[in-house]
Amino acid sequence: MIQHAAYPAEPWCLRETRLDLDVLAQSESLFALANGHIGWRGNLDEGEPCGIPGSYLNGVFELRPLPHAEAGYGFPEASETVVNVTNGKVIRLFVDDRPFDVRAGQMRSHERRLDFSSGLLERSADWLFQPGRSIKVRSERLVSFVQRSVAAISYEVEALDSPVRVVLQSELVANEPLPPGNDDPRVAAAIDAALRPLAHTSSTTGVALSHVTRTSGLCVAATMDHRVAGPSSARVRTESGTDLGRVTVTATLEPGEVLRVVKFVTYGWSAERSASAVRDEVAAALTVAVETGWDGLVAEQRCYLDDFWQRSDIEIDGDPEIQQAVRFSLFHVLQAGARAESSAIPAKGLTGPGYDGHAFWDTETFVLPVLRHIAPEVVAQALRWRHSTLSMAKARASELGLEGAVFPWRTIAGRECSGYWPAGTAAFHIGADIADAVVRYVDSADDLEFERGPGLELLVETARMWRSLGHHDAHGAFRIDGVTGPDEYSAIADNNLYTNLMAQHNLAYAVDIVQRHARDAACLGVDDREVAAWLAAADSMTIPYDDVLRVHLQAEGFASHAVWDFASTRPEQYPLLLHFPYFDLYRKQVVKQADLVLAMHLRGDRFTAEEKARNFGYYEGLTVRDSSLSAATQAVIAVEVGQIVLGRAYLREAALLDLDDLEHNTRDGLHVASLAGTWSALVAGFAGMRDMHGRLHFAPRLPEQIGRLAIRLCVGTRRLRITITPEDTRYQLSQGDTLEIVHDGEFIDVTRDEPTIRPTRASAPIDAPSQPHGRAPIMS
Amino acid sequence: MIQHAAYPAEPWCLRETRLDLDVLAQSESLFALANGHIGWRGNLDEGEPCGIPGSYLNGVFELRPLPHAEAGYGFPEASETVVNVTNGKVIRLFVDDRPFDVRAGQMRSHERRLDFSSGLLERSADWLFQPGRSIKVRSERLVSFVQRSVAAISYEVEALDSPVRVVLQSELVANEPLPPGNDDPRVAAAIDAALRPLAHTSSTTGVALSHVTRTSGLCVAATMDHRVAGPSSARVRTESGTDLGRVTVTATLEPGEVLRVVKFVTYGWSAERSASAVRDEVAAALTVAVETGWDGLVAEQRCYLDDFWQRSDIEIDGDPEIQQAVRFSLFHVLQAGARAESSAIPAKGLTGPGYDGHAFWDTETFVLPVLRHIAPEVVAQALRWRHSTLSMAKARASELGLEGAVFPWRTIAGRECSGYWPAGTAAFHIGADIADAVVRYVDSADDLEFERGPGLELLVETARMWRSLGHHDAHGAFRIDGVTGPDEYSAIADNNLYTNLMAQHNLAYAVDIVQRHARDAACLGVDDREVAAWLAAADSMTIPYDDVLRVHLQAEGFASHAVWDFASTRPEQYPLLLHFPYFDLYRKQVVKQADLVLAMHLRGDRFTAEEKARNFGYYEGLTVRDSSLSAATQAVIAVEVGQIVLGRAYLREAALLDLDDLEHNTRDGLHVASLAGTWSALVAGFAGMRDMHGRLHFAPRLPEQIGRLAIRLCVGTRRLRITITPEDTRYQLSQGDTLEIVHDGEFIDVTRDEPTIRPTRASAPIDAPSQPHGRAPIMS
Repeated sequence: MIQHAAYPAEPWCLRETRLDLDVLAQSESLFALANGHIGWRGNLDEGEPCGIPGSYLNGVFELRPLPHAEAGYGFPEASETVVNVTNGKVIRLFVDDRPFDVRAGQMRSHERRLDFSSGLLERSADWLFQPGRSIKVRSERLVSFVQRSVAAISYEVEALDSPVRVVLQSELVANEPLPPGNDDPRVAAAIDAALRPLAHTSSTTGVALSHVTRTSGLCVAATMDHRVAGPSSARVRTESGTDLGRVTVTATLEPGEVLRVVKFVTYGWSAERSASAVRDEVAAALTVAVETGWDGLVAEQRCYLDDFWQRSDIEIDGDPEIQQAVRFSLFHVLQAGARAESSAIPAKGLTGPGYDGHAFWDTETFVLPVLRHIAPEVVAQALRWRHSTLSMAKARASELGLEGAVFPWRTIAGRECSGYWPAGTAAFHIGADIADAVVRYVDSADDLEFERGPGLELLVETARMWRSLGHHDAHGAFRIDGVTGPDEYSAIADNNLYTNLMAQHNLAYAVDIVQRHARDAACLGVDDREVAAWLAAADSMTIPYDDVLRVHLQAEGFASHAVWDFASTRPEQYPLLLHFPYFDLYRKQVVKQADLVLAMHLRGDRFTAEEKARNFGYYEGLTVRDSSLSAATQAVIAVEVGQIVLGRAYLREAALLDLDDLEHNTRDGLHVASLAGTWSALVAGFAGMRDMHGRLHFAPRLPEQIGRLAIRLCVGTRRLRITITPEDTRYQLSQGDTLEIVHDGEFIDVTRDEPTIRPTRASAPIDAPSQPHGRAPIMS
Repeated sequence: MIQHAAYPAEPWCLRETRLDLDVLAQSESLFALANGHIGWRGNLDEGEPCGIPGSYLNGVFELRPLPHAEAGYGFPEASETVVNVTNGKVIRLFVDDRPFDVRAGQMRSHERRLDFSSGLLERSADWLFQPGRSIKVRSERLVSFVQRSVAAISYEVEALDSPVRVVLQSELVANEPLPPGNDDPRVAAAIDAALRPLAHTSSTTGVALSHVTRTSGLCVAATMDHRVAGPSSARVRTESGTDLGRVTVTATLEPGEVLRVVKFVTYGWSAERSASAVRDEVAAALTVAVETGWDGLVAEQRCYLDDFWQRSDIEIDGDPEIQQAVRFSLFHVLQAGARAESSAIPAKGLTGPGYDGHAFWDTETFVLPVLRHIAPEVVAQALRWRHSTLSMAKARASELGLEGAVFPWRTIAGRECSGYWPAGTAAFHIGADIADAVVRYVDSADDLEFERGPGLELLVETARMWRSLGHHDAHGAFRIDGVTGPDEYSAIADNNLYTNLMAQHNLAYAVDIVQRHARDAACLGVDDREVAAWLAAADSMTIPYDDVLRVHLQAEGFASHAVWDFASTRPEQYPLLLHFPYFDLYRKQVVKQADLVLAMHLRGDRFTAEEKARNFGYYEGLTVRDSSLSAATQAVIAVEVGQIVLGRAYLREAALLDLDDLEHNTRDGLHVASLAGTWSALVAGFAGMRDMHGRLHFAPRLPEQIGRLAIRLCVGTRRLRITITPEDTRYQLSQGDTLEIVHDGEFIDVTRDEPTIRPTRASAPIDAPSQPHGRAPIMS
């Protein structure tokens, strides 16, 4: 684990006290601001130096061809790739005739601070540009949660020792050059000059630019306006061109004098509306933003976040690093989803170009279960987004010779963008993952319109897919052959247990919802025969188990395979996929990420406690955690089977994944699912929360380092507070009517009036399972 | 089956009596001439119209990048692709001021004739180019078997009705434009302008051009010279440029007068020698060719083929179509391999650009077993070519984390060129296929130098690969997991039976040869421990078998998979790979091509007669023959299990595959393995020939349509004749000492003196197995 001393462990912010250009790109991801619609990487105001420039609008993509060395039927021929849209962050500064550049002169002080409570990214710099001559720069930046189309910057420059002439250029820049891609398949394909100019206009203090993406044909508009405060010498000049809007402010500052420019930026895009409609929309948003003013935007942001933390904060006594990490995580998960609305929640949020900006199963399996309890209003939006892609998923199913819907493994707008089908299209489990998210929402929300509409349809079409994908063998068992489960170091296996259990759940719940909404189901063509077929498939689902090893099998035949030669694998050969061929990974016992262990989390009722413990031990010995989607799930099950110390180690790994750049690719964007996993490791792990048919169960266990774990979460419209100490656990509502929960198997009522207190059970220390050689988590 | 009436069934030639431009490309493949070094497609002399222009030099390739939508470790980044080299076939003709073009004027007669006994491609045309004015064109073309670098054309034009002025342009053309590629992955990627000019020179009647391939850096030289006979008015003029050499002959012909031009062309290339060395080599070859003269070249060719047919002819009474097809097949198999020498024998020979000009396992498994008995001198060359690529195969093994050697699935010069690993690199069986060819050669030839050298090394390095690829499971069984067998509608399966049996053979024979040549083996680092490990693996090889179905399994778990829905598959949906995704093919019971059935041919001693019959019946019901590598093998086993009528149907399908364009891709080149399969279906099928440890066994059975089947074949230095009638089978040598063979289980001696005669056993009619709906062979 690499500890960046530059980021001290502080409870409510991420603070950088020294600028390290070697990790500049990583810092841009960590300091990214977003609201689910607009994403601004934490690039320096002046644009350079820069790791990866990044301004994103959720849903804006360009199509790029997907080349195949050998074509095959059903291989996608084009991929949607996130576009770096018009950059509204740039504020260049010239002091006398020198550009303000952190690489020149002497930075006497530097600080950046992402404040989780205000939602502002603050920066201050004290720059000596000539002997005895220096300035101070302070900027604050926000992407508004309240005004979805709005971002803003407050930029101040102050002369310190001597008078200076300053020129401040505030820009909108389209088609910025991007750094060349590298060979890591996980990095986005850079798309150069994706934006074709449509129009540009300028006003006294503002500029508007409109573009359209060349191939995908999406209209994108960006505007900016400014408010200037400073000496009376200040002058403003405005220019616009096809790919550049510039507002220049010049002034001469006496020592102690400050020039302050507030920049308001708005963004909009549409696949359907005309360029002029989009242009007008962003102009309207700009008007409101300017009227709101900087202070108004800051106040709105604070108010929004106050409410967020009041319902969602987690406090940890005894581990300041994790305290910081969990708030960092929750803040970024919120930023990824808050205002996504009719767009996906990408795996990297809007923090970088990694994975081409695609959304995966991460959303439904790892992110929505967290958002459900911290920002419940987002969940229905995300599921409605999935539903909006249903026609494409049905067409894809048809192309693949299946019934129902096959959702894409990776996508922005709904197209299958997976270029390698064994670890893409073959991962059919995404259908059940989506269904599972629907079930969780339907079970807990009182949203009949969703349930009878999109919810029902998603469950029906995924159930149809499972029924046509599997078959009953000669003995009647229902088999799902030749698919890929969560573990990407296995592929095209028969009866992946995770897939089968999730598909079973999908089928069974589809039966249930169809029976509850028979008339709506009939409109979808569902008849009794079909329902009976789903039920038969669910009832006779194959569950692979090894009688000799007495463990469940990740897939049929899994335990017959050779165990990976961990002893001979050197540390630098991880992640294995970059150093060994797929064929060798696939045919051996080596697990990239929790697969069967994830099944034990999501379908925990299908395993006995003894089975869970044995299974966990077996798969611990095979799991290398080459995926960011693993540690949090391992934490959850480790705690459940009594491996508290191990659970804490996995919690730390999940929590620090991006802060410590454990996978060496934080530069390309944050791992939103792993950030969400920090919450899961604490709430599903140490608080032991499980959702059983809409009722919450808890089984709190604390590691010795944590003196108190206080969790706030939303349960529908209720707000629940749980305070766990080694002695007892207190449950209390801060909003809503009495809630029945289960604590260590006991049904209890939780009210607003006073805390319901139960003892916290201690875990007896037990022997820890071993991990593959060199792959144990750090036990600190 | 489409019968082309244009090709009447004649015993010694393929004759086209009508020019059908719709199948021009197909005819260019059928009429291709080659000697294993030079290949000329049967393009019209005048170059146009043209399906696919094609002049090939075996081993000349260009590198093209292999794009991957998602890169992966070990994916090849470049592919070797056959290059269309300098075209020496072109002779354009102008009559008065009109170009001779089959699409203009009126073709009063047209004939092309490929003569299997002379090796000449003859053409004659009677062309009315204006009312009352016509000419006759006759050309003959050969690619010499005797002078490896030489091809030649005799071209005559005769005025028929009135005087004509003729201009004849004989050309060398480099970098011809190629037709655009199509989406079928089996078609070669066209490479434009692959040749960079180096030098061009001209003499009185000839031109020499030198080029180098742009990326792969191979020097290619082509020369031509001419002899002109005609009226004294004939004049010759010569020009040369970077990509064009032209010799122009002009003459005025009175009715009945003939202008005859003989064109001598020589080719050479090298990866190592200098351009000038290659240029001088082809100049020397040209000198010899011109001195030999047209009549001399024709006589040499006839003499070479007389010898070939004397030792290798097959006569069939009662089936003129098959009689023609088998000679067509043998002629083309000879053309593919005769002078390949230090190059591969590509899957399409040198008849077209299909499969990028790559060689596959076809060579060792389907072609060499035939060449062994019809042109035995070629076999050692082909195996030495494989051996010459061993260092690349060892490097590939190392890249893949394996010991020994991993030979490429598809290649020209030894590089792995497979762009889709599940049906490429994962088909590790190619290692055992090569080993099997080595074993067959070592067992039958008296070539100790090969045996102790390349043979030993190939067996050792492939055995090492198998030992490291497989593992002993907890019960001691040796498993080979996650590989692809011959059937490309399954992939990445555990314990493919074909692979396991062939690997077992490979390992066991490696043990054997190492013990015979202990000192040589020690030089390769082989020790007792390693040999013991090979033996242990061979002895405990997993052989998947289903106790309930009582059949062997193509791979573990195969019979648990759903059977493909053949009833719903429409005829136009074959080949399935163009209409269904791999994932669906892989996870169902559907067989592209003989897999387990091929194992029953090559490792027949591992199955009882009863097992063979049951297995054959089971897999017949699943095999769709979407590969040209299937019908011949099905013919062989059909006859063995007593399905004589079915065997004949498969024989016909193999034999007519290209003549009737059954796979609709003969345009891209002939299917050499299927052509060889015609021989196998007759000799291993109806004559029942099997090679058991170097001894030939026969079990002749005749279908009722064949009154007599007479087979000539080489057995080492011996020449054997077998004449099968419904009554008896006669064995006699025409060369060599007494040979012990086995006839229907009885050991008998065969001599030169007089035929050894045994009764031909009749097969009792038995119930025929069924094929997938719509995929039964035509029973005619």
